[in-house]
Amino acid sequence: MDFIRFPTISAQPQHEGDIRNCANWLAGHLRRIGLDDARVIPTKRHPIVFASRRGVPGRPTLLIYGHYDVQPVDPLNKWRSPPFEPTIRGDDLFGRGACDDKGQMFTHVKALEAYLRTSGAPPVNVKCLFEGEEEIGSPNLLPFVVRNKVSLAADAAVTSDTRMLGPNRPAINYAERGALYLEIEVHGPEHDLHSGNFGGAIHNPLQVLCEMIAKLHDANGRIAVLGVYDSVRSWGRKERANMARAGPSDDQILEDAEAELGWGERGYSLYERLTLRPALTINGISGGYQGSGGKGVIPSRATAKLSFRLVPDQDPLEVDRLFRKHVARITPPTVHVNVRTMSHAEPVLIDLQHPAIRAARLAYRKGFGAAPVFLRSGGTIPILSVFQNTLGIPTVLMGFALPDDRVHAPNEKFHIPNFFRGIETSIWFMDALASAHGLHLCPSPRPGRGTAEKNAEAIL
Amino acid sequence: MDFIRFPTISAQPQHEGDIRNCANWLAGHLRRIGLDDARVIPTKRHPIVFASRRGVPGRPTLLIYGHYDVQPVDPLNKWRSPPFEPTIRGDDLFGRGACDDKGQMFTHVKALEAYLRTSGAPPVNVKCLFEGEEEIGSPNLLPFVVRNKVSLAADAAVTSDTRMLGPNRPAINYAERGALYLEIEVHGPEHDLHSGNFGGAIHNPLQVLCEMIAKLHDANGRIAVLGVYDSVRSWGRKERANMARAGPSDDQILEDAEAELGWGERGYSLYERLTLRPALTINGISGGYQGSGGKGVIPSRATAKLSFRLVPDQDPLEVDRLFRKHVARITPPTVHVNVRTMSHAEPVLIDLQHPAIRAARLAYRKGFGAAPVFLRSGGTIPILSVFQNTLGIPTVLMGFALPDDRVHAPNEKFHIPNFFRGIETSIWFMDALASAHGLHLCPSPRPGRGTAEKNAEAIL
Repeated sequence: MDFIRFPTISAQPQHEGDIRNCANWLAGHLRRIGLDDARVIPTKRHPIVFASRRGVPGRPTLLIYGHYDVQPVDPLNKWRSPPFEPTIRGDDLFGRGACDDKGQMFTHVKALEAYLRTSGAPPVNVKCLFEGEEEIGSPNLLPFVVRNKVSLAADAAVTSDTRMLGPNRPAINYAERGALYLEIEVHGPEHDLHSGNFGGAIHNPLQVLCEMIAKLHDANGRIAVLGVYDSVRSWGRKERANMARAGPSDDQILEDAEAELGWGERGYSLYERLTLRPALTINGISGGYQGSGGKGVIPSRATAKLSFRLVPDQDPLEVDRLFRKHVARITPPTVHVNVRTMSHAEPVLIDLQHPAIRAARLAYRKGFGAAPVFLRSGGTIPILSVFQNTLGIPTVLMGFALPDDRVHAPNEKFHIPNFFRGIETSIWFMDALASAHGLHLCPSPRPGRGTAEKNAEAIL
Repeated sequence: MDFIRFPTISAQPQHEGDIRNCANWLAGHLRRIGLDDARVIPTKRHPIVFASRRGVPGRPTLLIYGHYDVQPVDPLNKWRSPPFEPTIRGDDLFGRGACDDKGQMFTHVKALEAYLRTSGAPPVNVKCLFEGEEEIGSPNLLPFVVRNKVSLAADAAVTSDTRMLGPNRPAINYAERGALYLEIEVHGPEHDLHSGNFGGAIHNPLQVLCEMIAKLHDANGRIAVLGVYDSVRSWGRKERANMARAGPSDDQILEDAEAELGWGERGYSLYERLTLRPALTINGISGGYQGSGGKGVIPSRATAKLSFRLVPDQDPLEVDRLFRKHVARITPPTVHVNVRTMSHAEPVLIDLQHPAIRAARLAYRKGFGAAPVFLRSGGTIPILSVFQNTLGIPTVLMGFALPDDRVHAPNEKFHIPNFFRGIETSIWFMDALASAHGLHLCPSPRPGRGTAEKNAEAIL
């Protein structure tokens, strides 16, 4: 609950100090449980927290990844209890970040603490890498991992930032969508105009923005940006049948969403639409008068935030190029339009044959008393592709979130029984990984000793 | 400047006290200049200020109308000086309401003061009716005038809340558009959703809203709401030629708007588009995340504020019905949509042959040294149709605003020389009206004497 109290909203500059404070608290907590080398590593924006621990010699190395930053909290008036005052109601702990990702990443911290307080060391070598920028696309972690790939070498990574199918239905995700987050701004007249004096004779940027957004999807729910489906991998009958068997049904997804009807690309189940297929979401629009009552105004500009979710084998930068081309094509001559790329991340597929996945499967049986199903996720964890491509390791997506945990929404919560089962599963996972066959063993970590934080990155 | 300092934003409930304070200040000011019966008349929302003065017996009665409420001030960061700290720069007085309408209505107050301090009485009987709800559609003034039509009887009304063509080009407006202000709300899933976990499978209310708004205009800039043009009066070659001669050119309108290109319905000049033809403006959209950075969210709802400007012979309530029908037709099954009518006002045409118009013409020659041109306005003054239909009198639209006064926008200003010329014009207008021929004389006003404010309405 102390951890959740820090309002670590990475997207909002006013929370920079809160994020720094939280990073310091986290490093301190890691030191208190026995990870002596825990340190805060400054970046251009929000710091990284790193800690490591040598386990039994000759054992594999596990990279534990998580993020302590959170999503914005608005609309604030929809929260039953304040987002940064963690509150327990029934079996759930409510608060922004309770699930995504402070609560979930803490399962591994507590698992490590359990080993340190009992056997004195985890059964594997461990490197903890916790960032404060996941929700803004990990802009500084990505180059950090590339620069420090030798120091961060590991045999597998694990992170808990994904969903289960239900309270007793654990799941390991083997696919995450990529993302491309954009902002589009439509500029019209130099300043706001009186809508009586000018309405009907001047093109309204807010209207233009809507008309352009209406041209981003076709009538069949497909993204209308030319070429955007060209590189989308198609999947055979076998994979789709596996998905239909293991994954959530349309009804289950609608129930989770508390929505009445599905929507989207024809010819695909809802589960397929949000995992196998790309999506384009309008995340926010801002323009003109938004207060109470009315205002007779033609606003001089209007903006929208929107994001693609991308699937293999789409390249975020190529989609960015296609989007800008499309926007140029649909921009009327009466306005000027700017597109700004805020972040991007590649889609990822995890090899289910990897020994770490087998170890995780074993761990779930012990931690949850049930074998995990293997699912695709529609979400995005930007660093995964770097772990895969730069460190050459898979990430075990050991999610403990429930479908109704309302991540990114008001009244986010974490199911407390899942916290404890998650800790147990993490404990068993390290145990199983210690004796896993077929891992290519990387060198043990060399923990830094009392090095000043400002030199931390160089040492890593 | 004292008058402008009151933040009388009628649309925003938090300014209720400011509006009451301003009404009290205004009534006090009217009493100080000699209108002893000035009083504040409470309504269901914002008060009316009324004062009257008997002039020379047997003379006509003039109803002076104006409003002391103002538009909202956002975007606040676009103001060079704070909106409610009136500031003089060059020949202009900057502040919200400086022009619309505190500055303009004050020309008549100062004209009255001039008469009261010199000849001791105005040359005509005068009734002052100042309201605090014009910018929200005059919801309480409309029934008030209907209820008090005997007490408010007059031979003509005058208001200054419209525009001139330029600093030395005075204008009398003879047409105002009506208005219909609406809010549309699109409801999707019960709560906000993670756009990774649900993007592509759940219809996004913000996207739906944009797609619906895109269906409100056709590709030719015409309103696409079925039937909305059916009752629009068409005008002959003569009227359109007069308008082309007297009214602003396309270039002038674009210069005023600081816009590069015009837009709208084909076959009409820009001046015609914003006076002879109806318009539909999206005044504001609100939905999803609007803070800095990004948020991966599908918002559960999205709203837009929009307003029609209506022309003879459109009926606001009929347009409201047509709009709701259109919305029902274009609402997809995946969402629920609510339409809320916020206010409406009828379009108005003033008879240019009326003696009060002739008196005004004379007054302008003396006050501005130039004959006024007769213009149509695209704006709306809701009470005018009630003056016309209930009191049976025309309103002289004696506007002193310049096209670049940025009414309803940041850095609203009033051109100070126009304030003084306006006062002189008002003085001459009352003088000319006193000896105008052809006025049907109404009974002189009976000013209330020391009556408690709560009884004021009954007495009126």
